Amino acid sequence: MDLYSGHINNLINELAALPGIGSKSAQRLAFYIIGMSPARVKKLADALVTAKENVHYCQCCQNLTDTEICPICSNPKRDRSTIMVVENPRDLAAYERTGKYEGLYHVLHGAISPMLGIGPADIKLKELMERLRDDEVKEVIVATNSSLEGETTAMYISKLIKPTGVRVTRIASGVPVGGDLEYIDEVTLLRALEGRQEL
Amino acid sequence: MDLYSGHINNLINELAALPGIGSKSAQRLAFYIIGMSPARVKKLADALVTAKENVHYCQCCQNLTDTEICPICSNPKRDRSTIMVVENPRDLAAYERTGKYEGLYHVLHGAISPMLGIGPADIKLKELMERLRDDEVKEVIVATNSSLEGETTAMYISKLIKPTGVRVTRIASGVPVGGDLEYIDEVTLLRALEGRQEL
Repeated sequence: MDLYSGHINNLINELAALPGIGSKSAQRLAFYIIGMSPARVKKLADALVTAKENVHYCQCCQNLTDTEICPICSNPKRDRSTIMVVENPRDLAAYERTGKYEGLYHVLHGAISPMLGIGPADIKLKELMERLRDDEVKEVIVATNSSLEGETTAMYISKLIKPTGVRVTRIASGVPVGGDLEYIDEVTLLRALEGRQEL
Repeated sequence: MDLYSGHINNLINELAALPGIGSKSAQRLAFYIIGMSPARVKKLADALVTAKENVHYCQCCQNLTDTEICPICSNPKRDRSTIMVVENPRDLAAYERTGKYEGLYHVLHGAISPMLGIGPADIKLKELMERLRDDEVKEVIVATNSSLEGETTAMYISKLIKPTGVRVTRIASGVPVGGDLEYIDEVTLLRALEGRQEL
């Protein structure tokens, strides 16, 4: 016998299909949602559909946006000579939160992963190369993750861009600020050593 | 400046208002949802609204159900002489999963908590007492949580029901099966000792 009625089970299953939501959280969420006011449930459901319908990739940087060109790309105050390449919009948001980066971005929507069968054609690399035809671009900062896939992608991008004469750099990898050496893995410690700079 | 466009921010805020979903998870979920097919987003949104519209409390046990009387209350095979009182539908589901309990349930939808200002009138106690007018009921098993609120509620229910002559019992509290004594808190260890039974 099913523990819950059809509509509840259906909601639980839909919620449990989302990433990071297990069956217990899905149950808790479903009961919470059923306990919300009808107006709030409607608002949540509308937010889902409206976001899906209205959000698409920026024609320039491929970040998610409501407008044809995203607010960052269309901001005249941003430095158009620098493009930071990130894997996804969350990484872009992380750098934006620092409030210190003034250049543009390019969102790949993934990273090269032979293991998962994701090749260069599956991420927004073609769009990046098209942007480099613009003589304004002087530097591409590769800010993909410090994972196997991120490093592979960084190497690939570097090889692709170098012939064009545009400068390609990689964000530093090392001990996080506030990190305690004792608890940091050896690969990071070695990276930090290799990347040491004059004081 | 907002990091994301209006529709994305709106979706993130709606998701972050759900319990157990922080702002980081809400971001991850929002981007995942925007990446889903429009049909799947529609299905998720519909599941929310449909569940909210169709699910209500069982007229008898107060569990959530699509029908007037829930499948457990309307099942002729269940033992109508026993009612297990639980705090919420998830606790009911936990006992149903054991497959061994054959009586009925009563869902309180909360527990008495003077700290949070939740009194006896705020939970489904009146509905429980009404059910006891039925002479069929011989025993009420109080299966509220083993927390301060759950214990307070259990004591209150016991005092309320005893004058009616119906038997009131409380589920045992002790060392969980498979639990290692070394890691179990002292209160539980003492409870297990107090509740010891002949071998």
